Order: sequence, then structure tokens, then C-alpha cells
Amino acid sequence: MRYLVTVSYDGTHYHGYQIQPNHVTIQSKIESALSRIHKGERVNIVASGRTDSGVHALGQAFHFDSELRLPTENWKLALNAHLPDDIVVQAVQSVDDHFHARYHVIEKGYEYRIYNHPDRDPFRRYYALYIKEPLDIKRMQEALNLLIGTHDFTAFCSSKSTVKGDKIRTIFSAEVVIEEPLVKVRINGSGFLYNMVRIIIGTLVDIGRHRKDPAIFQQALDTLDRSKLGKTASPSGLYLHHVNY
Amino acid sequence: MRYLVTVSYDGTHYHGYQIQPNHVTIQSKIESALSRIHKGERVNIVASGRTDSGVHALGQAFHFDSELRLPTENWKLALNAHLPDDIVVQAVQSVDDHFHARYHVIEKGYEYRIYNHPDRDPFRRYYALYIKEPLDIKRMQEALNLLIGTHDFTAFCSSKSTVKGDKIRTIFSAEVVIEEPLVKVRINGSGFLYNMVRIIIGTLVDIGRHRKDPAIFQQALDTLDRSKLGKTASPSGLYLHHVNY
Repeated sequence: MRYLVTVSYDGTHYHGYQIQPNHVTIQSKIESALSRIHKGERVNIVASGRTDSGVHALGQAFHFDSELRLPTENWKLALNAHLPDDIVVQAVQSVDDHFHARYHVIEKGYEYRIYNHPDRDPFRRYYALYIKEPLDIKRMQEALNLLIGTHDFTAFCSSKSTVKGDKIRTIFSAEVVIEEPLVKVRINGSGFLYNMVRIIIGTLVDIGRHRKDPAIFQQALDTLDRSKLGKTASPSGLYLHHVNY
Repeated sequence: MRYLVTVSYDGTHYHGYQIQPNHVTIQSKIESALSRIHKGERVNIVASGRTDSGVHALGQAFHFDSELRLPTENWKLALNAHLPDDIVVQAVQSVDDHFHARYHVIEKGYEYRIYNHPDRDPFRRYYALYIKEPLDIKRMQEALNLLIGTHDFTAFCSSKSTVKGDKIRTIFSAEVVIEEPLVKVRINGSGFLYNMVRIIIGTLVDIGRHRKDPAIFQQALDTLDRSKLGKTASPSGLYLHHVNY
């Protein structure tokens, strides 16, 4: 039987999602929890995609196969009983054997949180990007609108990316929402390139404090030139919000 | 010149407020920031009181003396420039030379945050007490009302306390407030004994899930018997909210 799991995690203390030798990752924690549930048997999980070191998730998704016949609510309880407190399974459902958590993604949503305030907040240092200068939200939304639709996002991709194939992606929606004292940027799309959201945000913050023009996004889309854009924003503000199938 | 400083901190990574050999504490971080501002000269600070390991502060207060003549806004900037991200100075004001941050406290307020939800929240594990079972808020408030006024709080004090003198304190107000998804308990008083708020909360949570009767608070006040009460609640949910002079 194949199961689809929705999981949230605080990425602060992990070396990202994907298993790496000699590092504690989200995947390694989940696979060892599953292994304990399966009396030591190795269980592989397949996620919708990886998240970087320090990046959080409200709704990451992964699938795994098991011969154990537990009711889905018991799967959730069993997993949470074996997971550390900073990784929490939200839901488990059984899916078709052909379901694939990476290949069948229809939409992914990211949320980026910015703490925009004259003073730092000691409780948000790992959970939001701190920006002291007031942000011009209207200007940020104007810039984001340029990204909506299907474009070649080559300029918005880390040079460290090893992705093969084209860099054409579709952004379905991109909006700035004020939830005092946070400014949240929500971007939903068909898929995202490596560091794409963090490069968008690094640039957007410069647009919001009038250091860059909103038209810079159009220029980057037209020229495919990474150097037009701002810095890659900190991973701490980034949340994988949801994955739709 | 004597200065009064209001400071907030995330206590997660500190061995409490007060300086201890071989441990990183809030006081040691603040004193070393002040020392750097004073070109290496040692500067002592005097706080309203200590907070335990893992306890947070929204408005702790301390005083210090300095020969430096900086405008109060510059003191704030200078301190924050030398402090780590999890300790943030909110305000600095100059005070009379006879002012004392511990002896002149008129009121202290604590807030205790409880995350009351069927599922854990990976982002709150160091910032709120997790309680799965639904809490009976009305019953909790009924119990808290018994504590208001001037009482001998001997039963509400850790046996590890080395406080000399009486254990009579005055609680000015105590209320439960729902701020979804948190339940917050706010207690204001003339002063608090060692672990007093955490013992109140440990008991209150048992009252809220119908494991103890609200009258247990009255019995503890009457008999001075610590064993009537519940466990000392985790420090992670506790915030020193404000200190009034």
C-alpha cells in the first residue's frame, strides 16, 4: 500500500530536507521513524522536492510504501510518536500505487515571512527576514505581478543548480499580504527552480525599500541575467506552504 | 548617570538570566556588550530579578551606571549593535541615582503560553506548553480567582528556593485569555516566589483538563502544602511580560 503524508517542520536545526552523509536532515529523521515502526526494516520516502537548510515547511508532502495495514489515523499517531518535536505529521492518506509525490505535483505554494519593524524581535530570528526600513507594499505587489504567468526563469535560478531541462515555470499567483507585524509574500506555481523564491524575495525587498525598480523583474525575465537581481534572501523566512496533486 | 533598560529575550539558548561560571547567560551577554561600549571596562547590571533557563522575557528591566554621556536613543542602538539577535533592548531611559531595578519594583507581570490543540506545532516547542486535551477555560479562571489578593504562597514555592523572609505576596490580577491557537495566562503581582508561576500553571492545566478541582488552590493557600499542587510547568511557555516601577 502506498501512503501520502503531509508534514510540517521547523528547519532551523536541520541540514535541509534531503539525506546527506554525516548530517541530520528531515528525510533521515522521517525514514528512521518509519524504520522503527517497521521493526528495523529500511523504508524510503519520496518527497515533492527538497528544502534547503533552515527552510521550514507547513505542508511538505511525501509518499512511502508499506506492507503494514494500519488505519490512516494510526499512521499519523505512530509517526508523530517516533518523530522529534520539530517535525509533525499533519495527515496521512492511502493513495493509488502509481501515485508519485514528486512527479504528480500540480501546484506548489511558498510563503516568505518578513518582519518589518524598527526593532528586531528576538523570537523571530529563525522564522522571518528582518527588514528595518519601511517597505512599500504597493510597489512590491506591482513587481510581483510581472512574474505571474509562464516564463523562462533562468535569471531566478542559483548558479549552483544542477537541474537538467528547461527553466520555464508557471507562476499562478504572487501576492504580498500584511499580517501585522509580518509582511508575507505568497507565491504559487507549477514548480520552482533552485533558490528561485529566495532570489525573488531578495530582489523584492530591495524594490520595497526603493533601492531597485519594479521593472527589474521584467528585465531579468527578458535578459535571463541573474546579475540584474538582488541577493538570495535568508532561508529562515521561507516556508513550503502546500503541495497540491 | 544611572540608566533603566527594558529588554526582551528568547531564553531558549541561555542558562537563565543570572551570571554563572562556565555558562552563557542573559546577564553575561548584556554585561559584555556594555563592557565593549565602555572600551573594556567592567559594567555591572542589576535586574528586577532572575529568570530561569529557558524562560523568555518581553519586558525584563535592569539598571546600570555609566560615565558615558550618550543620548538614550543612542544607548539603545549601541546595546543592540553589541547584543546577539535573541536579546533585544526595547528602551533606555535615564533615572535618578537612587533608583534600584530590584528594590523599587511595584508590579511584575508574567504571561504563560499554552498551545492547546490536537496536534503539536513544530514552531512552538520552545515557546509554549503543549496540551493536547481541550482545556476548560471557565474552570481555570474560577481557580485563578482564588489566588487574587494577599496570601502566604509557601505551597507555591520550589523547595530549592533560598529566599529569606516571608512568602507573603499579593496577586493583583490573574486571567486566562484565548488568543487562538494559544491560551495565555496573565498574572500580575507585587512579586513572585521561585517557580511560583510555573507551579500555578502546572496545577492550572490539571484543573483545566478536569484532573484536579479548582478548590485545590484554596487548600494549598490554607495548608501551605506544596504536595497538593501539580507539577512545575515547563519554562518554555513562561514570559516575564513587564516590570512596573
